[in-house]
Amino acid sequence: MVTNLALLGAGRIGKVHAKAIAEDKRAKLVAVADAFADAANAIAETSGCAVRTIDEIEADQSIHAVVICTPTNTHADLIERFARAGKAIFCEKPIDLDVARAAACVEAVKKTGAKVMLGFNRRFDPHFRAVRQAIDDGKIGKVEMVTITSRDPGPPPAEYVKVSGGIFRDMTIHDFDMARFLLGEEVVSVMATASVLVDPKIGELGDYDSASLILTTASGRQCVISNSRRASYGYDQRIEVHGSLGSVSAENQRPVSIEIATKDGYTRPPLHDFFMTRYTAAYAAEISAFIDALEKGTAPSPSAEDGLIALTLADAAVQSVQKGAAVRVSI
Amino acid sequence: MVTNLALLGAGRIGKVHAKAIAEDKRAKLVAVADAFADAANAIAETSGCAVRTIDEIEADQSIHAVVICTPTNTHADLIERFARAGKAIFCEKPIDLDVARAAACVEAVKKTGAKVMLGFNRRFDPHFRAVRQAIDDGKIGKVEMVTITSRDPGPPPAEYVKVSGGIFRDMTIHDFDMARFLLGEEVVSVMATASVLVDPKIGELGDYDSASLILTTASGRQCVISNSRRASYGYDQRIEVHGSLGSVSAENQRPVSIEIATKDGYTRPPLHDFFMTRYTAAYAAEISAFIDALEKGTAPSPSAEDGLIALTLADAAVQSVQKGAAVRVSI
Amino acid sequence: MVTNLALLGAGRIGKVHAKAIAEDKRAKLVAVADAFADAANAIAETSGCAVRTIDEIEADQSIHAVVICTPTNTHADLIERFARAGKAIFCEKPIDLDVARAAACVEAVKKTGAKVMLGFNRRFDPHFRAVRQAIDDGKIGKVEMVTITSRDPGPPPAEYVKVSGGIFRDMTIHDFDMARFLLGEEVVSVMATASVLVDPKIGELGDYDSASLILTTASGRQCVISNSRRASYGYDQRIEVHGSLGSVSAENQRPVSIEIATKDGYTRPPLHDFFMTRYTAAYAAEISAFIDALEKGTAPSPSAEDGLIALTLADAAVQSVQKGAAVRVSI
Amino acid sequence: MVTNLALLGAGRIGKVHAKAIAEDKRAKLVAVADAFADAANAIAETSGCAVRTIDEIEADQSIHAVVICTPTNTHADLIERFARAGKAIFCEKPIDLDVARAAACVEAVKKTGAKVMLGFNRRFDPHFRAVRQAIDDGKIGKVEMVTITSRDPGPPPAEYVKVSGGIFRDMTIHDFDMARFLLGEEVVSVMATASVLVDPKIGELGDYDSASLILTTASGRQCVISNSRRASYGYDQRIEVHGSLGSVSAENQRPVSIEIATKDGYTRPPLHDFFMTRYTAAYAAEISAFIDALEKGTAPSPSAEDGLIALTLADAAVQSVQKGAAVRVSI
Repeated sequence: MVTNLALLGAGRIGKVHAKAIAEDKRAKLVAVADAFADAANAIAETSGCAVRTIDEIEADQSIHAVVICTPTNTHADLIERFARAGKAIFCEKPIDLDVARAAACVEAVKKTGAKVMLGFNRRFDPHFRAVRQAIDDGKIGKVEMVTITSRDPGPPPAEYVKVSGGIFRDMTIHDFDMARFLLGEEVVSVMATASVLVDPKIGELGDYDSASLILTTASGRQCVISNSRRASYGYDQRIEVHGSLGSVSAENQRPVSIEIATKDGYTRPPLHDFFMTRYTAAYAAEISAFIDALEKGTAPSPSAEDGLIALTLADAAVQSVQKGAAVRVSI
Repeated sequence: MVTNLALLGAGRIGKVHAKAIAEDKRAKLVAVADAFADAANAIAETSGCAVRTIDEIEADQSIHAVVICTPTNTHADLIERFARAGKAIFCEKPIDLDVARAAACVEAVKKTGAKVMLGFNRRFDPHFRAVRQAIDDGKIGKVEMVTITSRDPGPPPAEYVKVSGGIFRDMTIHDFDMARFLLGEEVVSVMATASVLVDPKIGELGDYDSASLILTTASGRQCVISNSRRASYGYDQRIEVHGSLGSVSAENQRPVSIEIATKDGYTRPPLHDFFMTRYTAAYAAEISAFIDALEKGTAPSPSAEDGLIALTLADAAVQSVQKGAAVRVSI
Repeated sequence: MVTNLALLGAGRIGKVHAKAIAEDKRAKLVAVADAFADAANAIAETSGCAVRTIDEIEADQSIHAVVICTPTNTHADLIERFARAGKAIFCEKPIDLDVARAAACVEAVKKTGAKVMLGFNRRFDPHFRAVRQAIDDGKIGKVEMVTITSRDPGPPPAEYVKVSGGIFRDMTIHDFDMARFLLGEEVVSVMATASVLVDPKIGELGDYDSASLILTTASGRQCVISNSRRASYGYDQRIEVHGSLGSVSAENQRPVSIEIATKDGYTRPPLHDFFMTRYTAAYAAEISAFIDALEKGTAPSPSAEDGLIALTLADAAVQSVQKGAAVRVSI
Repeated sequence: MVTNLALLGAGRIGKVHAKAIAEDKRAKLVAVADAFADAANAIAETSGCAVRTIDEIEADQSIHAVVICTPTNTHADLIERFARAGKAIFCEKPIDLDVARAAACVEAVKKTGAKVMLGFNRRFDPHFRAVRQAIDDGKIGKVEMVTITSRDPGPPPAEYVKVSGGIFRDMTIHDFDMARFLLGEEVVSVMATASVLVDPKIGELGDYDSASLILTTASGRQCVISNSRRASYGYDQRIEVHGSLGSVSAENQRPVSIEIATKDGYTRPPLHDFFMTRYTAAYAAEISAFIDALEKGTAPSPSAEDGLIALTLADAAVQSVQKGAAVRVSI
């Protein structure tokens, strides 16, 4: 049976998901909705699906699932609405910037029994998955210390910063999820330091552009996260996991991997400079995993709960910076 | 205007090209032909094109170009036929295993003025292109020495070896073309050594599985090629160009680039183990370049002549091994 | 003029320094003292110097400087004594495990005007120096974030742990000094987490074997330190400095740098497994820098004050772990 | 018992060997001879040995061995003379530039039974030794193809070229020896191409500055050598051995191994730019191996015969270039 999907939100990331659906034979994109007709039409034309309203999609019994790519502040409402409508849901992260609202949404979803998957795309990066696989295969023994380096190519515009929820809820949230994906135990404590080193405007908006964090689990496993809103050399995305028998790491990715040697040294090109080219394979794989779960009737992962936990860790980080102390988290 | 394409041959490589055409908005796959109905039907279903006979395709004025992926021994005939029919042609390498037949085909094509592009896919690998770009940008000064390492993951079956034309016409032919792509001058001399180190059956068929070659240009530039039919660690495909101001190289590619460190050392996974996964991007880019040339009315490259020259170098290599001496080539 | 040096302590590290002195033409090792006659004799024989008592060395006006490699608990006394005797002093780190005693020693030395250099050997590692040089040359712009990974090949024996002063004063102390060497600003705050993941015996002795730290400077620069007492793959010593214009890093060192590719992947050998082979060049360079400073009459660096500051940061780390909060430091 | 050594020739390489002897407790440098008194005195002063004439050294029964670092044209005579005098001999390569003279010398030595070791230092490079060890350990199975890349940082002065014997006897000779060290079988055929791409003056002197070679063994194993007299990025010295089960390679070495990442990419420093810094460890290890052989009474390796064979291969390369054909060698 082919899974019929509708896309809510026809922006940049919506297009990526539409393409991924088109390449998966087990699914069919049957409808797209967007406040901007042009955006919806563009995807409809490419993929051969219909432009519909959200109401029409909600009412259409032949649509099994929705992919939510609308603005963040609509996520929780849409998740609840389509959960009640009996559809499976893939939603871009985060559920909401407010942890109480997100928790309420998770609670509401639970009552419906709807399947919800949250778009932590990095879990599907082939390199990071291979790191996790190496851990699962016992290659490095017991996990002890995780190191995540995550730096954006450049700072976001002020308009974005204002609605982003701050660096921890917007940027580090991916790293919180990755930490959980790799630590093998829940985080019980968050220590964070943050400052404004890159762009004073970010500071004027009450946010930070540089942050260092230490997460700890109950048994004492540690995770260090290093974030910056600027990396001249591209989109810096590295993880390393140190264990009792060894270490496994995923290095940065670049579009071309040549090396030029001259009297000035050996030079390789900069990294990917955009998250969508860096994580192309991850975006395709996450939609495939969603379709897979629907087809097999299993619970899609990462779940809405995973989204809520990452947000809780972000809130703890905000508090930790303010208090200059570790903040306990109970998950 | 959209370019209408027909696919001749619906095998493994035909599918790859069908997919590439589907992703290029400037073109449309309108027909597919194959002696095996199942193969043709499979592509027709996925891409939404019609299954047609070669005769029908030839006669259809709305079809602008054909992509030839049929067995090697049909290439020259099909090229000539479709050139006369006024269609542009993309043909998998080689034109023919016999240099005289290939030369006659090139001659025949020339008279028709048809546009013919030959499928030397490696020219379109993003890493190798970046090497060429670095040369063109003057990063390494004047080219002096090219080194090509090209090793298959494992030896081909005897059935394949029998009809392959031998290692130089089947395998090294890609390296001959790459050498010309990078040397910046035509080859005037070929020295080759070959032996059977991998699989005695290959020797029984009169072929070799291990070869080393030196190509020289008129001004004395040199190219060294190292071929083997076996590399336990995957599909080994490296190039390096040494020039007056420096050197540029493209390293091997692997599906995942993690590294595991244990008491036994630091280990990265093996390379791609299949030419189609190694050169995925190259296959897409070459079809895109073909469509691009048709759209702009420029000559597609590499041309049928390029195919003929590579074959001429392969013949010279065969002779060089037999004579134990350098063989002069005039191109 | 040749600088005459005496060596106090003829153990493992004493031998290393004796060798470094022997290779520097500007200096001459004229005396060695050790409680164990055999140890002193061995160095005397190799280097051609005399075995003397500490009293004799103190009284000998022709001896310009001493190199102190005795047990830690003798350092402060010996430094004060030889400072009063008007000799220049190179002393292995730390001055003392007690910050008050170390501060008193620094104070006492100041009154004598004696030249004292502390053996933070890593500042003289050629790779780490090159990192610092790149910063000084403006290659990465303004320093923003420093990352130090420092892991021992294996946990120390219980006997050593007991007298070590704990992981922060024994192991991290090198990283505190390296952080200051690279941050370009003094540290004002220390946040630390520590646990026992490697060896329960270390926990029974009240110490930790795994630690993560965040240091912050007044302007908000951050340094993350990751420590473990075990790394199966060798002595893991990496630094990375991220700045406004880029990043500079020093990778791990291994005795041989071959790579073996097989069906299981590409494997490079483990790292150095011992600090003395890892830092061979650094040990030679630090003695050379000491002799250089004496010859030129400049202040040797790192100084006794640098040793005191590193110890102060270690104390802050201990407190931070106990309090679960950042500890302010005023230096 | 300590081995007493005398050094003949106190130039650049003589100093290197004097230092290596000084660091080996099993040996003692007791005399040095050089036509230039200053050079001899400098070494005598540093090492504490006496300046003697060659006659005196020859006559001194307490001297067990000589290390010959005099100009090439004196090697054969000195080897014969000291072999007759009953001393063990370490001689810098080559025995002579003339293969007949070298053969006569080897013959003469054989009659005396003297122990002669030839200074093919690269066999003692720790990285290359590790490559050989990996082969001996069966890590790559049966050796099939060897690739040697050997490029000097810059072309030698005309004065040197004139007396060098040409690129094959001067530069490739090291690679011939390395090929034999790694191939595991004797070379039976040499194919070479050479040209003048770097410096026309080298061509005017009848020599080449760029060369590519293919060596073959009886069972069909192949070795490719790539030589250039110029590499802007430093002293380029790589080897790779491909076998039935895998491949092993030794990469280039650099003085410092940092990496700087900026908007222009990731840059590592150039390589060593001088053979004496590149092969520091190799020079020390080869003298140590010589002393070791004398102490144990075993035959030192590489031998004078190894030197003769490498020279024979160089002669074959010269002929191959002239004839444009493979040249058979019987060793």
